[in-house]
Amino acid sequence: MKKRIVAVVLALPTLLTGAAFGEALTGKLSADEILASSEPEDWRRPDPNNLVYLDFKSGQVVIELSSRLAPQHVDRFRTLVRRGFYDGLTFYRVIDGFVAQAGDAFGRRESQDDMAPLAAEFETTLGDASDFAPLEAQDGYADHVGFVDDMPAAFDGERKEAWLLHCTGAVAFARANEKDTATTEFYITLQPHRYLDKNISVFGRVLYGMEHVQALRRVQPVGGEEQDLGEEIVSMRLEADIPASDRRPLFVLKAGVDTFDAYVEARRNRPEAFFYFRPDYVDICQLPLPVRATSSP
Amino acid sequence: MKKRIVAVVLALPTLLTGAAFGEALTGKLSADEILASSEPEDWRRPDPNNLVYLDFKSGQVVIELSSRLAPQHVDRFRTLVRRGFYDGLTFYRVIDGFVAQAGDAFGRRESQDDMAPLAAEFETTLGDASDFAPLEAQDGYADHVGFVDDMPAAFDGERKEAWLLHCTGAVAFARANEKDTATTEFYITLQPHRYLDKNISVFGRVLYGMEHVQALRRVQPVGGEEQDLGEEIVSMRLEADIPASDRRPLFVLKAGVDTFDAYVEARRNRPEAFFYFRPDYVDICQLPLPVRATSSP
Repeated sequence: MKKRIVAVVLALPTLLTGAAFGEALTGKLSADEILASSEPEDWRRPDPNNLVYLDFKSGQVVIELSSRLAPQHVDRFRTLVRRGFYDGLTFYRVIDGFVAQAGDAFGRRESQDDMAPLAAEFETTLGDASDFAPLEAQDGYADHVGFVDDMPAAFDGERKEAWLLHCTGAVAFARANEKDTATTEFYITLQPHRYLDKNISVFGRVLYGMEHVQALRRVQPVGGEEQDLGEEIVSMRLEADIPASDRRPLFVLKAGVDTFDAYVEARRNRPEAFFYFRPDYVDICQLPLPVRATSSP
Repeated sequence: MKKRIVAVVLALPTLLTGAAFGEALTGKLSADEILASSEPEDWRRPDPNNLVYLDFKSGQVVIELSSRLAPQHVDRFRTLVRRGFYDGLTFYRVIDGFVAQAGDAFGRRESQDDMAPLAAEFETTLGDASDFAPLEAQDGYADHVGFVDDMPAAFDGERKEAWLLHCTGAVAFARANEKDTATTEFYITLQPHRYLDKNISVFGRVLYGMEHVQALRRVQPVGGEEQDLGEEIVSMRLEADIPASDRRPLFVLKAGVDTFDAYVEARRNRPEAFFYFRPDYVDICQLPLPVRATSSP
């Protein structure tokens, strides 16, 4: 392998040579180096009641839920997962570059389950403003973006309202045109779709295994029972309900700690010798949120 | 199918009811309706010398090249495609959420082909500023974004320099740390990665079949010849070199025409009744550029 389009983890900070544009940033640590030198307390083990394991034949996806920003939606999703509602259903609407949508395509289970439509949770009041960790970055869709529960979020400081963003891997219930109509069908975004923010109640994000979502067979419902209903959900389980030996050791970098701030800076202006132009900017949806799958953080 | 998370094409413009946020936009056409009522002259048939057909076993991808913004890179790519250089090679580095990279992983063909490293074309002078169709949207990575050759681009009006953007589906050659080192390996972005702008010479974008790129098997080169080298490129051909009967009837909406402006406005503020909050903004990488595969535009 001769070339990589991004620098790999470097043994030592490198000096920048031959910079055609931008300013020379010497001796700074790359994002990978910053994470490598982080402390265990920079990382958080998610609450097992907030982790959903979604099994395909092709592999496992792990979703983290945010009770803080969409409590009713999370409660519903948890209930459905615990009932095994989704087991054997499919991702029946998978549109490239848009979303992968799953659930009860013909409404058979739902009619038996008496799942009343949910009131929208487009925004949720943050009792404590410090639960929002701001990202210093102008944003076209919201006045202030950052993180809540270490997930991409926006915050209206005057109204104290926060909401999760439709970056890639956002998880939400589908709804009809009227806002209080979500019941059981859910989707995962395959690309950022920020125009959906505050129009649908995002309640979580994919922490792990997003490649299995991206690779789902593209299908479009066309009506009729003979159509391809897409790939099957073998099972969905709450981590709290599975044996410790089956749990993945996932750790999430905490937004707001010094390590996180250094990581963000290294994403704004990458110090690696590979880069000639440094934008001094990072879009919230282009900032990969560090997750580790390791026995200790 | 009970719910969709976006409104489908509507027979008639709808009245907005129950808007909790945003302003009521009544009687406006949706993006789909605007495209449905476009005129043939709003669309462009790409030059067959600028279209590359990339065949996987799973399906076909079509890439459009921009000679205007990266003439030397396009010339190299065209030459390699015409030689059949990539036929039988693989996408050997496919990293979820990042890029799918293809080419001569072990440098065997390249050593026979005498492909000298290319001088970077990070930016290219636009002789005619009207070749840049601006998008009115603040952007964190560049002062002015818009379109050149109907591809997402940025433009520095003072220096008259333009460059293509790393939105999803951007096509570029990989390089080593030094800027003038691209030879034959290329990649396609799976998500927006704007920090790569002006650091690598983007020379085209995927027009069609992006779902086949998104579904490529994720592989990482680890060294050694026994590793999984990923999915094979069955063949790559220039459209100009294939029979008319095998050509796809692809048409691209022209940036800058009235239909395009109306389309952009309908993306900034979606008039469909589904939407309660309208951001009055669209990010350049979240604006899907209309392409039609149809016998006439």
